[in-house]
Amino acid sequence: MEARLDNGDIRPVEWIDGSIKLLDQTRLPLEEVYLSYQDYRELATAIKEMRVRGAPAIGVTAAFGVALAAVHSKAANLETLRTELSEAIAVLAATRPTAVNLFWALDRMQAIIPRAIDPDHLRQLLVDEAARIFEEDDCANRQMGLHGAALLPDQASILTHCNAGGLATSGYGTALGVIKAAWQCGKQIRVFADETRPLLQGARLTAWELMRAGIPTTLISDNMAGALMRAGEIDCAIVGADRIAANGDVANKIGTYTVAVLAKEHGLPLYVAAPVSTIDLNTPRGENIPIEERNADEVRHLFGTQIAPSNVQVRNPAFDVTPHSLVAAIVTELGVVRAPYEAGLRALARAR
Amino acid sequence: MEARLDNGDIRPVEWIDGSIKLLDQTRLPLEEVYLSYQDYRELATAIKEMRVRGAPAIGVTAAFGVALAAVHSKAANLETLRTELSEAIAVLAATRPTAVNLFWALDRMQAIIPRAIDPDHLRQLLVDEAARIFEEDDCANRQMGLHGAALLPDQASILTHCNAGGLATSGYGTALGVIKAAWQCGKQIRVFADETRPLLQGARLTAWELMRAGIPTTLISDNMAGALMRAGEIDCAIVGADRIAANGDVANKIGTYTVAVLAKEHGLPLYVAAPVSTIDLNTPRGENIPIEERNADEVRHLFGTQIAPSNVQVRNPAFDVTPHSLVAAIVTELGVVRAPYEAGLRALARAR
Repeated sequence: MEARLDNGDIRPVEWIDGSIKLLDQTRLPLEEVYLSYQDYRELATAIKEMRVRGAPAIGVTAAFGVALAAVHSKAANLETLRTELSEAIAVLAATRPTAVNLFWALDRMQAIIPRAIDPDHLRQLLVDEAARIFEEDDCANRQMGLHGAALLPDQASILTHCNAGGLATSGYGTALGVIKAAWQCGKQIRVFADETRPLLQGARLTAWELMRAGIPTTLISDNMAGALMRAGEIDCAIVGADRIAANGDVANKIGTYTVAVLAKEHGLPLYVAAPVSTIDLNTPRGENIPIEERNADEVRHLFGTQIAPSNVQVRNPAFDVTPHSLVAAIVTELGVVRAPYEAGLRALARAR
Repeated sequence: MEARLDNGDIRPVEWIDGSIKLLDQTRLPLEEVYLSYQDYRELATAIKEMRVRGAPAIGVTAAFGVALAAVHSKAANLETLRTELSEAIAVLAATRPTAVNLFWALDRMQAIIPRAIDPDHLRQLLVDEAARIFEEDDCANRQMGLHGAALLPDQASILTHCNAGGLATSGYGTALGVIKAAWQCGKQIRVFADETRPLLQGARLTAWELMRAGIPTTLISDNMAGALMRAGEIDCAIVGADRIAANGDVANKIGTYTVAVLAKEHGLPLYVAAPVSTIDLNTPRGENIPIEERNADEVRHLFGTQIAPSNVQVRNPAFDVTPHSLVAAIVTELGVVRAPYEAGLRALARAR
């Protein structure tokens, strides 16, 4: 096996001199457009519109959003600045309900606030903390990659769903980080990417990102994975997570549960890769995780083109829950957890 | 329960005074455009392009195609006309490989040819035989509907995949015929329609057709069915078939196998509705059914809009095979067959 270079230089979110630069993921892969934000409310709208998406990237972006609110506030005393920051945190928290990393990152920013001695000190502490969250995420992704790569055989045909890549994190990726790490170690990796309706993160983002990294990738529509598994063309599946309940149940992009059931039927392992910040010990089981229901037009339209009767009723849950019994292992930056999950996840979440 | 009227007056294919009128299904639901053919080669292209699709509708259209070739031939003697018809049958047979109804209908047309005493007699015999195939299909659909409706509970939330409706047949439908019949009998029916990537027959055709019939319909993307089954929102699934092997294995639109695995996991019955002409005793098992692989751009593009990197590798099988072990019952116009399928299907195919 020959080691390979990591040439995926993806920057979904960056803090540049008091402004936030986002790669507009709604325009990929046709255009690589960067947006710049100085107003945290506009940034919150961008998160809702999924210009940035993926649980870890949402967390990092929201942390930078709090720093943005602080830096651009005209507050002259600590009390006023703290009031403004409470409002900013509330606005950022109301963007997406399912990914727990958002609330985790905002809690970390919140915890900094009492430590400041004056407004400028608070501004600096918040910018530093957001940068730390960003860097920790990058580091966690790379460690997760190594832990996960060890699980993959030397020759592996891997199914992934949605985009749990550099675009969904600070730049390396969770599920795709594992794939990239295995590839960099010299393993013979081939990826099947589910296109992931309705917003096509697999077709638009995962295919773009893996091709950029030079990893052999085949795009399929979501309903083809079963037939390929039955034909023996897939060895395992790996996905990210938006929230992991204390018992190991996993909320992730809609369709993940179907991948899990298919993997079970064919005796294939399903791996979940996510940073420890995705584990939510306050959520006992999967059914306690709030599932975001998005606009019906995301299903009725595609890139502005209507594809269904305009008045047809639609369901559009953005996520589903995979019970822990269908998960072969959860890969984190602190190591790999297997069933029974409860104790292992609790230990990891407390070790962090 | 109150009986309801059938107000779905769908005509996907019609023979009108020596020409064939097709409802262009690639333009639905945005536009209801009808095309007229007098040249069987252009008609063959229309079948390849899926302007008409669905196994029974392809069979009916191909039968009319042979009549079209005969009516527009200038051949003055039987021998010349027969040679031209052999060519026409070969061209029509080469349009789509998976649906066996195509070959079944062409075989029926072929069997007429030796019976004629002169060219005009042959033309008339072929027009009559195609009209008979059309009418038999309509009648078979309605009988199938009644047999199948009896299987559905009085209150049922039903998942369907692709379009096995009036648009896929002479006008009433196979799987949707069963749903329509249950609805007309007064059962409380609610349908979840899988959108069915890549060509979106569920979003474009099934949603349009069921709404037109007044049946409560909710559109979902293919990867949502699993989560809805887990939530207890689906009672059964019903689909059509493009070919049923002698052992009961079913080839149908890609994604059907995934629906079948999900139904098994949740203990829900999967019903297959198809005319007896879909049973192919010459194909012993599912793995013997040829599966059409279509153009990669059907996955990379959608309604002319690019949705993935232009050079990404793609798999695009148009169908998959569901093993008979996952099928609760096969509904035909001659009755309902259950496992063990081999003897039951053989008896039906021979009874016809």
